Amino acid sequence: MAKSGSARTVCILLLGCSMTVPFRSLRGQTQAPLPIMPLPAHTVQGQGEFRIDGTFGITFEGHMEPRLKRARMRFLDTLSRETGLPLVLEEQANPAHFIVQTAGASDAIQQLGEDESYHLEITPTQVRLTAPNPLGVLHGLQTFLQLVRITPQGFSVPAVTIDDGPRFPWRGMMIDVSRHFIPIPVLERDLDGMEAVKLNVFHWHLSDDQGFRVESKKFPLLQEKGSDGLYYTQDQIREVIEYARDRGIRVVPEFDMPCHTTSWFAGYPQLASGPGPYKVARHMGVLNAAMDPTKDSTYKFIDPFIGEMAALFPDTYFHIGGDECNGKEWDANPQIQSFMHKHGLADNAALQAYFTARVQKLVAKHHKVMEGWDEVLQPGTPNDVVIQSWRGLASLAQAARQGNRGILSTPYYLNLDYPTSKYYLADPLGGEAATLNTEQQARILGGEAAMWSEYVTQETINSQIWPYLAAVAERFWSPQPVRDVNSMYQRLAIESLKLEYYGLNSTADINEMLQRMSGNANPTALKVLADVVQPPSGYTRYNLEGGKSITTLVPLNRLVDAAHPESETARKFHDIAEQIAAGKATAEQWQQARKWLTAWRDNDAQLQPMLSKSALTQELVPLSHGLNQVAAIGLQALDNLKNNRTVALEARQQDLSVVKSAEQPQAVLRDMIAPSVELLVQATKIE
Amino acid sequence: MAKSGSARTVCILLLGCSMTVPFRSLRGQTQAPLPIMPLPAHTVQGQGEFRIDGTFGITFEGHMEPRLKRARMRFLDTLSRETGLPLVLEEQANPAHFIVQTAGASDAIQQLGEDESYHLEITPTQVRLTAPNPLGVLHGLQTFLQLVRITPQGFSVPAVTIDDGPRFPWRGMMIDVSRHFIPIPVLERDLDGMEAVKLNVFHWHLSDDQGFRVESKKFPLLQEKGSDGLYYTQDQIREVIEYARDRGIRVVPEFDMPCHTTSWFAGYPQLASGPGPYKVARHMGVLNAAMDPTKDSTYKFIDPFIGEMAALFPDTYFHIGGDECNGKEWDANPQIQSFMHKHGLADNAALQAYFTARVQKLVAKHHKVMEGWDEVLQPGTPNDVVIQSWRGLASLAQAARQGNRGILSTPYYLNLDYPTSKYYLADPLGGEAATLNTEQQARILGGEAAMWSEYVTQETINSQIWPYLAAVAERFWSPQPVRDVNSMYQRLAIESLKLEYYGLNSTADINEMLQRMSGNANPTALKVLADVVQPPSGYTRYNLEGGKSITTLVPLNRLVDAAHPESETARKFHDIAEQIAAGKATAEQWQQARKWLTAWRDNDAQLQPMLSKSALTQELVPLSHGLNQVAAIGLQALDNLKNNRTVALEARQQDLSVVKSAEQPQAVLRDMIAPSVELLVQATKIE
Repeated sequence: MAKSGSARTVCILLLGCSMTVPFRSLRGQTQAPLPIMPLPAHTVQGQGEFRIDGTFGITFEGHMEPRLKRARMRFLDTLSRETGLPLVLEEQANPAHFIVQTAGASDAIQQLGEDESYHLEITPTQVRLTAPNPLGVLHGLQTFLQLVRITPQGFSVPAVTIDDGPRFPWRGMMIDVSRHFIPIPVLERDLDGMEAVKLNVFHWHLSDDQGFRVESKKFPLLQEKGSDGLYYTQDQIREVIEYARDRGIRVVPEFDMPCHTTSWFAGYPQLASGPGPYKVARHMGVLNAAMDPTKDSTYKFIDPFIGEMAALFPDTYFHIGGDECNGKEWDANPQIQSFMHKHGLADNAALQAYFTARVQKLVAKHHKVMEGWDEVLQPGTPNDVVIQSWRGLASLAQAARQGNRGILSTPYYLNLDYPTSKYYLADPLGGEAATLNTEQQARILGGEAAMWSEYVTQETINSQIWPYLAAVAERFWSPQPVRDVNSMYQRLAIESLKLEYYGLNSTADINEMLQRMSGNANPTALKVLADVVQPPSGYTRYNLEGGKSITTLVPLNRLVDAAHPESETARKFHDIAEQIAAGKATAEQWQQARKWLTAWRDNDAQLQPMLSKSALTQELVPLSHGLNQVAAIGLQALDNLKNNRTVALEARQQDLSVVKSAEQPQAVLRDMIAPSVELLVQATKIE
Repeated sequence: MAKSGSARTVCILLLGCSMTVPFRSLRGQTQAPLPIMPLPAHTVQGQGEFRIDGTFGITFEGHMEPRLKRARMRFLDTLSRETGLPLVLEEQANPAHFIVQTAGASDAIQQLGEDESYHLEITPTQVRLTAPNPLGVLHGLQTFLQLVRITPQGFSVPAVTIDDGPRFPWRGMMIDVSRHFIPIPVLERDLDGMEAVKLNVFHWHLSDDQGFRVESKKFPLLQEKGSDGLYYTQDQIREVIEYARDRGIRVVPEFDMPCHTTSWFAGYPQLASGPGPYKVARHMGVLNAAMDPTKDSTYKFIDPFIGEMAALFPDTYFHIGGDECNGKEWDANPQIQSFMHKHGLADNAALQAYFTARVQKLVAKHHKVMEGWDEVLQPGTPNDVVIQSWRGLASLAQAARQGNRGILSTPYYLNLDYPTSKYYLADPLGGEAATLNTEQQARILGGEAAMWSEYVTQETINSQIWPYLAAVAERFWSPQPVRDVNSMYQRLAIESLKLEYYGLNSTADINEMLQRMSGNANPTALKVLADVVQPPSGYTRYNLEGGKSITTLVPLNRLVDAAHPESETARKFHDIAEQIAAGKATAEQWQQARKWLTAWRDNDAQLQPMLSKSALTQELVPLSHGLNQVAAIGLQALDNLKNNRTVALEARQQDLSVVKSAEQPQAVLRDMIAPSVELLVQATKIE
């Protein structure tokens, strides 16, 4: 792990950096931050720029391996997609002004804590990238690609010297492919994006109640009865692992047990604590199915199963889940009750601890280190077991105090639609973890974002993950003092454009959904609405189904499914509204506010006749009408403020009540303009 | 080949059909055309609709084969993408209301002229698709998918009975992968689109001066020296052939000879007529390189080469090109001149005929039927040789009179950016071919659209092909009387949306290019400009490079490369301008015209400051300014017409001269609004 940069160096890159003396470059000018995400540990901007045109050449020196050759080809391919320049692939075709120097090899199987640092030096005449091993090279190439921009003279990157390395060695993303199956091409786009933002662990949640997604040759009924035909073959798994390794990413498989296991029991009911029969679960939530921890036959199944999977997945770590056992099947099974009594297992937690301890030995027998969710931590849990915390910092700190290593996953649940700033500011060493001593803090390996797939499909998942994951990646990579939310949002917007070259084009995905909702009609007005709404945070989607527990067969093709988790337009409008309310807005901001509010007010007239023509949009009638009302009130407030006009208290109260009521979710979507309009109305003076 | 539908039946589907008595359905109401493209031969619309929801099931009866199983899965997958419904794949999961009945197998290798007909019957309670063999099933499934629409009650298809089959048995698309290499995923999207519009031949132009794109195991220097590393392996070729066969599409390879062969000579200069040395051509155009037809060694190479490729490509037809020999290398080679003298070959055409005759025997020896461009037709050409005509109908008719079969490719050159209506109205049995007798007409097998890749890359090719190819497909499939241009454009717009579910999302491709040109700036204003310009028809792109001959290394990343070949907005505006000029416009049309013209006039102020910031957009300064001027004049003319105001002759002349000058291409782009504004100005009355 590279040392954190000094606060001073870091602040070169931060807009609105809170140091007392704003940083100035050697030539005395304050510099804008480079659009790099995650921000590097140390950056010194130089003079001039390095031009990129059709004569661009790159050559690799020092240690060489096929992965680096492929990295070179991918780099040229991405650069070509970024620029539209047809770059010649042959190494000798052009004189190389970009020289990559790799000192040596990295481990054959990527290990936690390997050196990922790199040094990148860009001058107007040359680029040099040096790294101890290929991992740093991969990261450095991504930094370079992020710096590419169009100028009046053509494409270029600015002169800069970067010394970079990660703050945490475990920077992951968990994707649940059980609740909704996610095909490999979609996952490969995620791996492309993860490489771009220097994440290094793909945690693959491969089994749950709603689907078992891996081919087992030893226990084929797992996929045959447990997947609705939607699973990855072992060849496909190997392909993904290779794809990830090429991008500096480890693949950690998770087979959740002893609970979240309904899909296993469809083929192997003898593993279960209940009488069955079992079939793949359609409903979401915490279900009752649980393995029987009391039977030896259970472990005789798990042992060779782990053996098979341990051979398939080369990573050192093996995740056995362990979360959310409700214990109902255990309670209802007299044999299990008598076993607990006999062995002095006081409660279900103790029973699960017994199970975990036995499974841990099997994992170790197959030369893997066990990982599990908070629940696997018990007194006596071996110290090498890694705890992934969904319960949060207190739980994580407890693990570290007990001597276990851990990673933080809460609040990085991207499926919960929190504002990006919330993910961004949550630090794995914050909260109770900040009170740990140095030795204990060193046990916090990093963190993992998570995308649980109850409410996403292959169509929507990547527009929920991206670009937001880039902000989490910055939390895990960049020095702790890097916390400027404005800078993050600015760079995130740019990174979002870069991600399009990796196929992570959420705008296109969303447009396609809006078009579907509109039938053959023009979706422009629907898009205006979509752009200023967002789902409430948390598990709320089921409200659209009358509050009933949602199943895997419910279509996720409505506006709530297509909406961005965070409305960028609304966020920008809010900034302007705050300035106006504070009497500090520029003429340009007044004009922008008026333009937006007018468009929102007038949108309903266009949209309303269309909404009723499609079963997918009928529910949006009140939402669109509410936007119209709120925008009209906002325009009136704008006028009043502009002209220093006072309003009657009652009139203002009435406006506020309309706005307040528009803040209530409709069709599980919040009108994100309403809170800003509320600000404007509050700012008008009373008669 | 199915018989053409009667004009009456066809007209059910045509809006603005020119029959004297408008067709009325049994219940006495004129019906809107169903959005099917190509239009079926016979259609009778019924009452009600068949609903599609999560309980949808489809089952296949009768003849079964793996291709049909895959077709079923793809059908469900596409339907799911169209609707967002999670459809259960298992055949027994839902009671099937859609029954497919296949009578028997089709040929193991798809043959020209196989029965492709199908019968599709949709009632509110059931769908039945029957076909003599899998080819008809594939077509019928596509027709069903095109009928799917969203209604207030959910997704459904209208009740209808369709009897359908193609007019021509050879309905193709040629793609040149030599000038710019086109990766397989891009080609697979084209095959998906071709299936959707019932095309059945993928003509793969695999070699040319600028690249040899197939792995030869017998002559590996072909790809090693002739492709810059960009070629398809034989495994990949087989994958594409399988992919195409699954979609009812034959794959006809073309190896262009004796000219357009520079890339062959990079590895095998002994084949050439000139002294060399040769390397892969970078320049476009008709180059001099030509095989030496006088040496036996040439045929000793071609023979096993054709043998290898004949085994790789299972189709009966084998295309040997034969176009555009300029003869310069032959003229300059004394040995060739003496050979010609000795054998009484009067000119280069005779020399090529000698070559073609020898190659034809080799093609026949390897059990293939030869195909070639017009030039291979000579007196004495065997009657089974198929002539592909780039010279047009006269040349095609000549082939048919001589007893050869032929297909028409001119004017279906999509790379030439003609209006879609021009492609659409050109009939393979029009022009001189209309004068052929019945027996001769039967020799016209159909046609092929073509996409030559001098000026397209993998990034731009599909936004140049789609959706325009769908109009050509209708020409080849639907009965000859189907020629209503308005109906075509209306259905094309809908089909264009459907094609998005196949990944042929040209809007997304273009948006990505506009974003690149704009750097990190918002590309909205650039998009407004892009939406109303189009490149002049013909080979004009090189004008952007100072009129110099363009090379394969020139970046194709400018607005001319991103622009739609035909501006839909400008076409619609033109319709409105005509109505206004004729005094027939509705209030809505007046309003739309004013709204558009205002947006175009005001766009320049937004766009101008951005254009100079990017090397990719600086050239657009005059174009954007011109749109501003033209729109301002248009608004003034609109006002004058609305208020019956007269204008001074001189003022009108001056306006016209500004508009006329804006009609001149700028940055190889035409302002497509200008001609319509000209109409408006012309319509104003003189004082």
